[in-house]
Amino acid sequence: MNLFQMNKNELEAFKNETEAQYNDFKALGLSLNMSRGNPCKEQLELSLGMLNVFDDGNFKSENGVDVRNYGMLDGIPEAKKFFADMIGVSDDEIIIFGNSSLNAMFWTVQTAYNKGVLGATPWSKLDKVKFLCPVPGYDRHFKVTEFFGVEMINIPMTATGPDMDMIEKLVAEDDSIKGIWCVPQYSNPDGISYSDETVKRFANLKPAAKDFRIFWDNAYCIHHLTENPTVILNILDEAKKVSNEDIVYIFGSTSKITFPGAGVAVMGGSKKNIDELKKYLGISIISYDKMNQFRHVKFFGNFEGMCKHMDKHREIIAPKFDHVCEALEKEITPLGIGSWTVPEGGYFISFNSVDGCAKRIVQLCAEAGVTLTGAGATFPYGKDPDDKNIRLAPTYPSMDELKKAMELFIICVKLASAEKLLAE
Amino acid sequence: MNLFQMNKNELEAFKNETEAQYNDFKALGLSLNMSRGNPCKEQLELSLGMLNVFDDGNFKSENGVDVRNYGMLDGIPEAKKFFADMIGVSDDEIIIFGNSSLNAMFWTVQTAYNKGVLGATPWSKLDKVKFLCPVPGYDRHFKVTEFFGVEMINIPMTATGPDMDMIEKLVAEDDSIKGIWCVPQYSNPDGISYSDETVKRFANLKPAAKDFRIFWDNAYCIHHLTENPTVILNILDEAKKVSNEDIVYIFGSTSKITFPGAGVAVMGGSKKNIDELKKYLGISIISYDKMNQFRHVKFFGNFEGMCKHMDKHREIIAPKFDHVCEALEKEITPLGIGSWTVPEGGYFISFNSVDGCAKRIVQLCAEAGVTLTGAGATFPYGKDPDDKNIRLAPTYPSMDELKKAMELFIICVKLASAEKLLAE
Repeated sequence: MNLFQMNKNELEAFKNETEAQYNDFKALGLSLNMSRGNPCKEQLELSLGMLNVFDDGNFKSENGVDVRNYGMLDGIPEAKKFFADMIGVSDDEIIIFGNSSLNAMFWTVQTAYNKGVLGATPWSKLDKVKFLCPVPGYDRHFKVTEFFGVEMINIPMTATGPDMDMIEKLVAEDDSIKGIWCVPQYSNPDGISYSDETVKRFANLKPAAKDFRIFWDNAYCIHHLTENPTVILNILDEAKKVSNEDIVYIFGSTSKITFPGAGVAVMGGSKKNIDELKKYLGISIISYDKMNQFRHVKFFGNFEGMCKHMDKHREIIAPKFDHVCEALEKEITPLGIGSWTVPEGGYFISFNSVDGCAKRIVQLCAEAGVTLTGAGATFPYGKDPDDKNIRLAPTYPSMDELKKAMELFIICVKLASAEKLLAE
Repeated sequence: MNLFQMNKNELEAFKNETEAQYNDFKALGLSLNMSRGNPCKEQLELSLGMLNVFDDGNFKSENGVDVRNYGMLDGIPEAKKFFADMIGVSDDEIIIFGNSSLNAMFWTVQTAYNKGVLGATPWSKLDKVKFLCPVPGYDRHFKVTEFFGVEMINIPMTATGPDMDMIEKLVAEDDSIKGIWCVPQYSNPDGISYSDETVKRFANLKPAAKDFRIFWDNAYCIHHLTENPTVILNILDEAKKVSNEDIVYIFGSTSKITFPGAGVAVMGGSKKNIDELKKYLGISIISYDKMNQFRHVKFFGNFEGMCKHMDKHREIIAPKFDHVCEALEKEITPLGIGSWTVPEGGYFISFNSVDGCAKRIVQLCAEAGVTLTGAGATFPYGKDPDDKNIRLAPTYPSMDELKKAMELFIICVKLASAEKLLAE
C-alpha cells in the first residue's frame, strides 16, 4: 500500500514494524562501505597481468626514450595514440597525466585561475567567477571550484542531459560564467548519457566569456553495463564543425579500468588549448610516470583490447546493479516513497527519496553499519535543496554484502519516510 | 701559461690553435646530452627488482587497505614510516605524494598562494610576494615562483650555505618575503652542504612574515659520493628546540634512487603544517599511486636497505665526477680561466668561467653536439649577472662519452676565454 494513502494509525503501525526490523539489523553489527565508486577485488584482479609486462626487458618507448628516466612531459607517443582513441581526439590533442584525472582537472582550473585561458585575464584577477553545475553531480568537481572561491549555479538534469535552454541563456548573458562541469556518458550519479542534441548544443555554445570552458569529464566512456551500448557523440568533432573547438577540455582515466590508485589520467582538447597547457605543465612537473603509461599500452595492446577488458568488468558488476534496481522495484515501488535511475553504465544508482528524507536515511544506515555517500554531496556546497538525493555505489561490496546492505537501505528508506509523513 | 699573462700575439696563437681543435671536434658530429641530472642506464638497472615485488601476491597494506584501490590520501602507513626516516620526521609529520617532488612543491606554493598558510592572507591577495633565492640554484625552483609572479631576490652562496647575515636581515625587515628555496645537502648546482651553524640559523629565523616558509628541498639527502659522508643537521629537530617548527617544509624523493619517472616524492614538516596541507590535498586528488609506494617499501625493506642501494649508485657515478674534476684540474687550472666545485655528493659540478663567457661556452658546445644546461639557468629569470656559471651533469653519459664531452667542454672554455680576453 502506498505510504501516502495510509492514515495515521496505519503509518504508526508501519513505522513500528519497520523500526523493529531496523533494530534487528543494528544488532548484526554490520560494517559495509557503499560510499564511493570503488571497484571490487575481482575487478582489480582483472589487471594483474599488467604488473608483468616488463618481463620482456623492454623499457624503450618507440621514440627511443627510456621510460624509466626523466623526460616526455606530455606522455610517451604510444600512450598518446592509445588514449587518443579512448577520448576521441588525435595524438597531438592530448596530454598524458599521472594517476588522477581529478588532479588534472584541479591543475587545469588552477592554471586558468592563476594564468588565464589563451590570453584572457586570469580568473584570480576577476571580481567574480561562476561555474554551472548540473545537479545532482560529482562532489569532487564541486570541491575543486569551491576551493578557488568560484560561485556555483545549479543546473537541473533532464533525461537527455543538463537543461540546455537554461545553460544557453545563462552563458550568453553573463561573462563571469567561466565553465561547466559535465559527466556526459553515464553521468555521476544519475547514469544519464547526453543525447546527440545535447552534445551538439554544447558544441555550439556561444558564451559571452571567450574563456568559458566545458569540463567534459568522460570518466565512464567505456564503462558499459549493457552489451550493445549507445555511445555519446564526440564533442570535439562537433565543435570543430562550427569552429568552436576551443570550448571544451576532455578528461578521462583508467581508474576504473585497471587500478584506481595506479591508473593513467588523460586530457584532450583542441591543439591550441593543449599547446597552451603544455607550456605551463613543465613548471609543475618534469614528467609523469611513463612506466605506468607503458604498462597500460603493453597490457591492452590497443583500444579494442581495452574494450574487451571492460566486458569482463561488466560481467562482474552488472548483476550488482540489477540487484539494487530489482530490490528497490520490489520494495519501494508499491510504497511510492522513492524513485531511482536504471543506469546502462557508469558506477552509480541515483536514488531520490521523499523530500526531506535523504539525510535521515544516510544517518540511519550509518548507525546500523552501512556507510553511504553523504546526503547533499551530489550538490554544490553539499546542499541538496530538497534533501532527497542519495548516490548508491554498488560495485565494491560482494553480492552477499550488497544484498544485506540493500535490505538495510530499504528499511531505512521506509522508516525515514514514515517518520516524515507522521511529522507532517 | 695563465691566459691572463699572455700578450696579444700569444693569445691569438692560443685562440687559433684551440679553434682548430674545436673544428676537428665539430667534424665528429657528436650528440651528447649533459643538460639534466639524469641517472645513466646502469643506475636504472639497480632498481629492476622493484618491478617483481608483487610476485608475492600481497597487495594489502599493514592497515588492511588494498593498495590497488582508492584511499589513503596521504600514503600507506608503511611508506610513511619508511620515508619519515629518509627526511628526518615522524610518521605523522609526512605526506607521501606521487612521482615528483617538484609537483609537491608547486602544489604547496599554489596552496599558500590560493588559500594562505595557517590562516594568513592568501599570497594571491597581497600586492607583493617575494622569495629569497640562493644563487646559483635550481632552475625549476625559480620557475615555480616565477609562475606565481613572485619577485625573486638573489642570495649569494658561501662555502657553508647561503649568506645567513643577509637572509636574517631581509626576512626581519620585509614581511612581503614569504619563502626561500634551499637545497641543503649537496646544493644544486654547487654541491655545498649547509654547515651546522647555517642549519641552526635557519631553524632560528625570525621573519617579519608569520607565513614565511623555508622550502627545504633535501633532494640529495643520501646521494653521497664519498664513503664516509657528512650529513647535515636535522632542521625540524633544531626548529623544535626553539618552538619554531612551523617555519620549514621539507621535500625529498626517490627520483635519483629508483626511477626518475616512477619514484616516490614526499613532504615533511610540523604536524600543524602537515595537518593543514592534508586538509587541502583531498581537493586535488583522491590518492596517489600506493602500488608504487608499496613497491619501494617492499624492495628496500627499510632505510638502511635504501642506503646500501645508494652505495651501488656511488660506485657507478663517483668515477664520472672524478674524471670531470681531474680533467678540469689538468687543463683549466694552469690557464687560470675557471673554477669549480668538487662535490661530495649530489648530481652536479658547478663551473665558473671568466666573467661573460658562460653563454658563449654553452653555445660552442651545443654547436659541436654537446648539450649543457643553458647558461643563466641557475639564476632567477635565467639571468646570471656575471654570465659565468655553468652546471655540469656528469651522470648520464657513459664514461667514454663523458671523456669526449669534457674534451670538448675544455676546448670551448679555452676558446671562449681567449675570444673574451682578445676583445677587451
